[in-house]
Amino acid sequence: MSLPSDFKDSYVDLAHQLADAAAIVTRKYFRTQFDVESKMDASPVTIADKQAETAMREMLDRLVPEHGIFGEEHGLKWGSGAGSKYTWVLDPIDGTKSFITGKPLFGTLISLVYEGSPVLGIIDQPITKERWVGVAGRPTTLNGAPLRTRPCPDVKLAYLYATTPHMFSGENETAFNRLRDSVRIPMYGCDCYAYGLLAAGLADLVVEADLKPYDYMALVPVVQGAGGVMTDWRGRPLVWQPTPGATDLKAGWPGEVCAAGDPALHAKALALLDWKH
Amino acid sequence: MSLPSDFKDSYVDLAHQLADAAAIVTRKYFRTQFDVESKMDASPVTIADKQAETAMREMLDRLVPEHGIFGEEHGLKWGSGAGSKYTWVLDPIDGTKSFITGKPLFGTLISLVYEGSPVLGIIDQPITKERWVGVAGRPTTLNGAPLRTRPCPDVKLAYLYATTPHMFSGENETAFNRLRDSVRIPMYGCDCYAYGLLAAGLADLVVEADLKPYDYMALVPVVQGAGGVMTDWRGRPLVWQPTPGATDLKAGWPGEVCAAGDPALHAKALALLDWKH
Repeated sequence: MSLPSDFKDSYVDLAHQLADAAAIVTRKYFRTQFDVESKMDASPVTIADKQAETAMREMLDRLVPEHGIFGEEHGLKWGSGAGSKYTWVLDPIDGTKSFITGKPLFGTLISLVYEGSPVLGIIDQPITKERWVGVAGRPTTLNGAPLRTRPCPDVKLAYLYATTPHMFSGENETAFNRLRDSVRIPMYGCDCYAYGLLAAGLADLVVEADLKPYDYMALVPVVQGAGGVMTDWRGRPLVWQPTPGATDLKAGWPGEVCAAGDPALHAKALALLDWKH
Repeated sequence: MSLPSDFKDSYVDLAHQLADAAAIVTRKYFRTQFDVESKMDASPVTIADKQAETAMREMLDRLVPEHGIFGEEHGLKWGSGAGSKYTWVLDPIDGTKSFITGKPLFGTLISLVYEGSPVLGIIDQPITKERWVGVAGRPTTLNGAPLRTRPCPDVKLAYLYATTPHMFSGENETAFNRLRDSVRIPMYGCDCYAYGLLAAGLADLVVEADLKPYDYMALVPVVQGAGGVMTDWRGRPLVWQPTPGATDLKAGWPGEVCAAGDPALHAKALALLDWKH
């Protein structure tokens, strides 16, 4: 994916501003103790999630009203005018279970999608203050420094991450376990942060299922701009474009993703997953 | 466990100095990229592990030569003289897989064991700069601020951590799965950091297996000083004392641990584990 001709560098600046705005909210609620008997919709993570998304949406409404917005918490808003080929896809807190237990590996995910393809992605960890930025056709950066994935052509040498083994079921579980049993070490518990580690050349594979576009759109430019490959489990690009008039926004969402730092490893991982869907 | 009458507050200061010394080494090697085809014994984590333990042992040899030392990397040294009822138990990098993949949730574990019982424990995370300190009979602190666990008397409301589901096998796996299927959310990937979150009232249970004394001795005073309970899977205290002349240091090591923030939850978790060994 290359950048569209009407892409503006100010969109990158805007993505940084969105991350800054979300971070003010997430830092405020991080490690707020809560009563475990309370309902989830009254929990600090839910409040932080909604407020952080609102802060980002207000900024987008004001600065780029012609762009669409799709966020985990507040749904889809169509853009207006010619700019509506662009949609901002937002996940204010990816890794809500990490957030709620005080583990500083959740992330704010911000992506700009052009005609279905992510062209800009940010993974922001507001507690450790790490920000990965990926822009199609440009080198990925972590806090401004360029990153490269590392070579690892051999599955049996690979360090594999997935958020939890419980995200796989049925045929997905069978496929994942086949891959998991072939790698050097399978690890868990990272959410979006694992893709940042992969982009930094510190892990080799991230393979997950049961995801939504706001969980992975921002990750694609980060992984690819560092030299990696990220697709669904059959090697297809991760694209998603809301269809005007569609009643089911989830139609056509791929939920299974495979990211590899080394393109040769990516091909071998897909062969082991051997996924038919 | 209360403090022995000959316990000195200077031991707490010394434990802080040990953590500072280890942190200099671990920070230096953290996120050092390495060739995945290299041998583990030449990896940054192995070098950091050994150097950090050496730094701590040199300090102990100089300042408390009468105390014993037991470390993951360099084994057992008997103390000399009357003070040999004390043994420092050290794990320079708990969570080597986290360390090697650049995840800042590993920890340096430092404990002082008196006649087999841990009376002082430190969990130090040198990247996020978080240090938990537990001393028998005193309130646990995180960066100097006192902590309390939270109430959670009901298993089905509990947030459970374990480093990885792959640490359980055979009867351990059956027992763990029984508990895992009863809690609100099982989570993975935290190493010693999970016990720090539990002490801070942000998680409710940490249940693990296949551990060694240097993996858990430091955790016990941290958990207990915050109001929690930490034992083996049958509720027995986690004690370990090297036996003079023993050829197998591993004899009698409990490997299964259960920590709970709420004592009522601890009893219910043990009942679900229903472990006979």
